Amino acid sequence: MGSSTTTPPNTSSSSFTPIINHLHTTIPSDNSRHELTHSLIPSLLQSIAEISSALRDAHHIKAAGTANSFGDDQLNVDITAETSIRLALSRCPSVATASSEEDPIQRPVSHPDCSSSSSSEVYTVAFDPLDGSSIIAPNWTVGTIIGIWDSPSALSCSPAEKQIASILGVYGPRTTAIIAVRFPFSSPLCFEVSLDTNSHTWAVTWPSFEYNSPPPKTRYFSPANLRSASSLPQYSSLISQYISEEYTLRYSGGMVPDVVHSLVKRHGIYLSPVTDTHKAKLRRLYELCPIALVVECAGGKAVDLDGNDILATEVLNEDERGGIVCGTREEVGKAMKVLLG
Amino acid sequence: MGSSTTTPPNTSSSSFTPIINHLHTTIPSDNSRHELTHSLIPSLLQSIAEISSALRDAHHIKAAGTANSFGDDQLNVDITAETSIRLALSRCPSVATASSEEDPIQRPVSHPDCSSSSSSEVYTVAFDPLDGSSIIAPNWTVGTIIGIWDSPSALSCSPAEKQIASILGVYGPRTTAIIAVRFPFSSPLCFEVSLDTNSHTWAVTWPSFEYNSPPPKTRYFSPANLRSASSLPQYSSLISQYISEEYTLRYSGGMVPDVVHSLVKRHGIYLSPVTDTHKAKLRRLYELCPIALVVECAGGKAVDLDGNDILATEVLNEDERGGIVCGTREEVGKAMKVLLG
Repeated sequence: MGSSTTTPPNTSSSSFTPIINHLHTTIPSDNSRHELTHSLIPSLLQSIAEISSALRDAHHIKAAGTANSFGDDQLNVDITAETSIRLALSRCPSVATASSEEDPIQRPVSHPDCSSSSSSEVYTVAFDPLDGSSIIAPNWTVGTIIGIWDSPSALSCSPAEKQIASILGVYGPRTTAIIAVRFPFSSPLCFEVSLDTNSHTWAVTWPSFEYNSPPPKTRYFSPANLRSASSLPQYSSLISQYISEEYTLRYSGGMVPDVVHSLVKRHGIYLSPVTDTHKAKLRRLYELCPIALVVECAGGKAVDLDGNDILATEVLNEDERGGIVCGTREEVGKAMKVLLG
Repeated sequence: MGSSTTTPPNTSSSSFTPIINHLHTTIPSDNSRHELTHSLIPSLLQSIAEISSALRDAHHIKAAGTANSFGDDQLNVDITAETSIRLALSRCPSVATASSEEDPIQRPVSHPDCSSSSSSEVYTVAFDPLDGSSIIAPNWTVGTIIGIWDSPSALSCSPAEKQIASILGVYGPRTTAIIAVRFPFSSPLCFEVSLDTNSHTWAVTWPSFEYNSPPPKTRYFSPANLRSASSLPQYSSLISQYISEEYTLRYSGGMVPDVVHSLVKRHGIYLSPVTDTHKAKLRRLYELCPIALVVECAGGKAVDLDGNDILATEVLNEDERGGIVCGTREEVGKAMKVLLG
């Protein structure tokens, strides 16, 4: 209300110009998506830069003494990440509602410092502020997962149509982000941007991810929830098959780095089956849907354990969970044949 | 020759005081190891900070157009890492010789900017400047591996007695390093230091790693060279056993992050068997010996595929390679029973 700007102070358009231009290779450059390209995506990248900085100097990772609504241990950096993204959203008047894995109730977002929006754009944002808590202490790469929906609600609507963008923040030796966008009747786009920590600017460093192009020499597999294989013979068979066919194993236990590995290598299969005793932990709204959009925009496939596209099924509530098999189309087909018996 | 200082300009003693004090809990604080504690280890940590910085802004990872002597692809950041460590060693007059995976011939180190050393300390340093090249592009955690030998040569002497220290640089969301030291008749010590990127200083962030203390809830396994299991039934059986006993999988494909994970979780087993068709890739001098010292200093065990301690066998030449099984003593014993049939 005080300020009339709708972009936060640190996200000066000029430093995001290369990214905005790249987004416009698939998003119309008329004013119909101006808030998305000039305000929301830059603001979220700014949060990813802030989270990276907080992680870098989080020498004393500790439990914050609270638990989130799902009962996970909550770390001090988790809270920093949640706060940073919430603040970013409060500066984007086009964001009507939001929810996160740390506060999993979809609620209106207030915009105390913004003039009332004259834009017709209305989004909701669903995010996991810091995915991979268990591998923060050993200093492994972790990530942020964000889904942007072209709707005031992400619930009870078509994910394939309404979730138009997702962003994965990747905190490793570098700070990078994967951006996927897909609008009806437009070509999907999946690309990487990297933070230059000296100039505090982002650059497009991988203009387009596309599985299998050119055909990869090495085949990778990433078997999550492997303990479920003890009671799931099909999963156990599939693992044996990958070993006998000499696939290369890469499994960090962080969904963001595991999926990003497959994008960069242009090949890979990520599997997270579930059983009665090894229940689903991955949330559809905060993890599976944004990841599925990234994979599909790179030409891959992401299905549930019945073989249906993750994005074909409406999310009915924030706590819905499920299994996933995703990666190249060929590998997903091959895996599902074994898993479905 | 111009300067009379033996420590490089950036490694002012004061900023390393907490680490030097911590080293002196096991290293005598008389002057007999002054060069090691006040010059060599601080200089190597300074290199690790520089490599971290180079990686952070290496947005365009590319092949440097050359190949190292072992025929690996060499990346531009590999060269930066090699150069940084070589320069650090040239500033430490106690370092008589050095060799690395990038230049694997043990040669004298010249010290053009140092006054002639009056110290009786004489070391050689053997290092892998940047381990895990294949996972740099996807932005996963990678590392540096350094062994410090109390001798002018690392060849044809007892690794258990002469390799007195090793350092693992860990480049992830944070920049950390694991330091292991062990002198005859002193207690071994394995601890973590972390870089504060604002003040450019290091702090002791984990004063002592000790496997199994307290007993861990979760058991981890990290199966390297898994493709060898296709022709090694014992390895294949062992993997099946871990799955049926519901061990948790963590395998990044980088030896540094994989072993550091086990230290931080106080449990883990890392296996890298070899076969005729899946030959050993890990070098004894640059990878296996320094890693083995870290594991042993944390109370664990590191053996070759005959079950002999890695550090019990002399290294005869720089290119020697081998398999390894390392981790907690119990897990190594259990794994070797299966692998040796």
